[in-house]
Amino acid sequence: MNLLYFLDLIGTAAFAASGAWAGVRHNMDLFGVLVLGLVTAIGGGTLRDLLLGDLPPFCLQNEIYLWLPLAISLLVFLAHRFFPKIENPLLYFDAIGLGTFVVIGTGKALSFSIGPVGAVLLGAMTGTAGGVIRDVLSNEIPLIMRREIYASACIFGGTLMVLLHALAVPNQLNFLLTAISVITLRLLAIRYNWSLPKAE
Amino acid sequence: MNLLYFLDLIGTAAFAASGAWAGVRHNMDLFGVLVLGLVTAIGGGTLRDLLLGDLPPFCLQNEIYLWLPLAISLLVFLAHRFFPKIENPLLYFDAIGLGTFVVIGTGKALSFSIGPVGAVLLGAMTGTAGGVIRDVLSNEIPLIMRREIYASACIFGGTLMVLLHALAVPNQLNFLLTAISVITLRLLAIRYNWSLPKAE
Amino acid sequence: MNLLYFLDLIGTAAFAASGAWAGVRHNMDLFGVLVLGLVTAIGGGTLRDLLLGDLPPFCLQNEIYLWLPLAISLLVFLAHRFFPKIENPLLYFDAIGLGTFVVIGTGKALSFSIGPVGAVLLGAMTGTAGGVIRDVLSNEIPLIMRREIYASACIFGGTLMVLLHALAVPNQLNFLLTAISVITLRLLAIRYNWSLPKAE
Repeated sequence: MNLLYFLDLIGTAAFAASGAWAGVRHNMDLFGVLVLGLVTAIGGGTLRDLLLGDLPPFCLQNEIYLWLPLAISLLVFLAHRFFPKIENPLLYFDAIGLGTFVVIGTGKALSFSIGPVGAVLLGAMTGTAGGVIRDVLSNEIPLIMRREIYASACIFGGTLMVLLHALAVPNQLNFLLTAISVITLRLLAIRYNWSLPKAE
Repeated sequence: MNLLYFLDLIGTAAFAASGAWAGVRHNMDLFGVLVLGLVTAIGGGTLRDLLLGDLPPFCLQNEIYLWLPLAISLLVFLAHRFFPKIENPLLYFDAIGLGTFVVIGTGKALSFSIGPVGAVLLGAMTGTAGGVIRDVLSNEIPLIMRREIYASACIFGGTLMVLLHALAVPNQLNFLLTAISVITLRLLAIRYNWSLPKAE
Repeated sequence: MNLLYFLDLIGTAAFAASGAWAGVRHNMDLFGVLVLGLVTAIGGGTLRDLLLGDLPPFCLQNEIYLWLPLAISLLVFLAHRFFPKIENPLLYFDAIGLGTFVVIGTGKALSFSIGPVGAVLLGAMTGTAGGVIRDVLSNEIPLIMRREIYASACIFGGTLMVLLHALAVPNQLNFLLTAISVITLRLLAIRYNWSLPKAE
């Protein structure tokens, strides 16, 4: 399925850029920027493959998942003066990545016969764990635990996908519907500044 | 062994409550609270299964280990006003969980033919790693590294279990003695405020 | 190859000492000091084995990798008053450890048929991830992301090793050349205070 692979690479690049940018903001050296870009891009999928026992993980089996984030991070490092100009557009690519990662993660979990709750969690983890590692390495409370409909969009998408799978909807249609709903939900959340309730 | 399973679920629920409560205190949104509750409950056992190569880990094979912590965390989120009232009683359930987790972790390591030091460490990790991940995600130095006889009770219990195993004590008796000693040690430490020496 | 094993143990001990010392400085109790010493010494290799799917990891297969760091950490805890006197000499042993860990990590990745970028990354991870975990558990931004030619020496060494491997240089010669170049680079960086560029 070539569209999914293409979207996956777009998402990988967008996630790498957000990680590398966090490194620049935290005044890290070149190595730190490359590491943050790389782990943000591949952390979620790698953790998923670790838990599924599908080793070595995807990024060690197809090295484009290493080259691409490293190249993007180097670019962000070199041209970081221009980054603020692309920060907003980047959010759209980031949303595309989020939707694609959830579809790939949930789909892979289902194909490994993981139960419904586990499949939703592995899908959400594929979309969000890279960002969590980025924030932990930057010594911050992970962003997704404090703000916005981000992980929630993943949970929603994963749940939809598990339901459609249980209803025997064909995989390709399921992938498409799920990815579109995650991306739409995420973009609406950005546009209208939605957030989850806090305990008060 | 149904008693062990029952105690395991009690411990899982108590650990989830402590994680969710950390999320509420750190002003996280609903998602953050659910994640902290979940990782605190299953983090130790999952890390153990990763290291043993027993994949997918226990929580992806029996989804009650996902449902239960999520439900408890939701409850803590919704009813957090009442949490301070149950905080002290919770320490007792937490101690039960600690003892049970150490027994399960050390026992599993021994059944995988891990050596004595490794078995003790995997048992202690089963009991404590969830709390460590909770603290790292809350951007704090992990509690167990700074205070109290907590991990030490795990180390003591694991060592006892490995010794009894080497002496060919029957498993069920071994499980019972170990769990009771960890729980007792932990409760005494809470009661009398014991702590480990620091370097001065 | 007995020399490599000997150097590996020297490096393991030096890494454990640096981790335990971080625990003492952060005012941790005995348990915290032991954990920090242990994870600093074995964290990198364990993460590598997790990603390669070679489980249980090396340290659970040969328990000297558990005993040695624990013993060294206990020593640092007990005799921490003398630590500042050995801190500078320790940097030399640390450099030996770094070179050895990179050689072992990159070599193992190559023997698992991992691609060139992945092999370099796994080698660098073997040398540096323990220190990253130490810093995360101490609630600091990992040192290697902010300062000095440390990880860079690993990347350089790993790249050299992958190239020599592609050129069919015999393993033992390759190991020797790579280890010496990492160690030399690291010692020169310490001596002349080299650092990587930051984004400005």
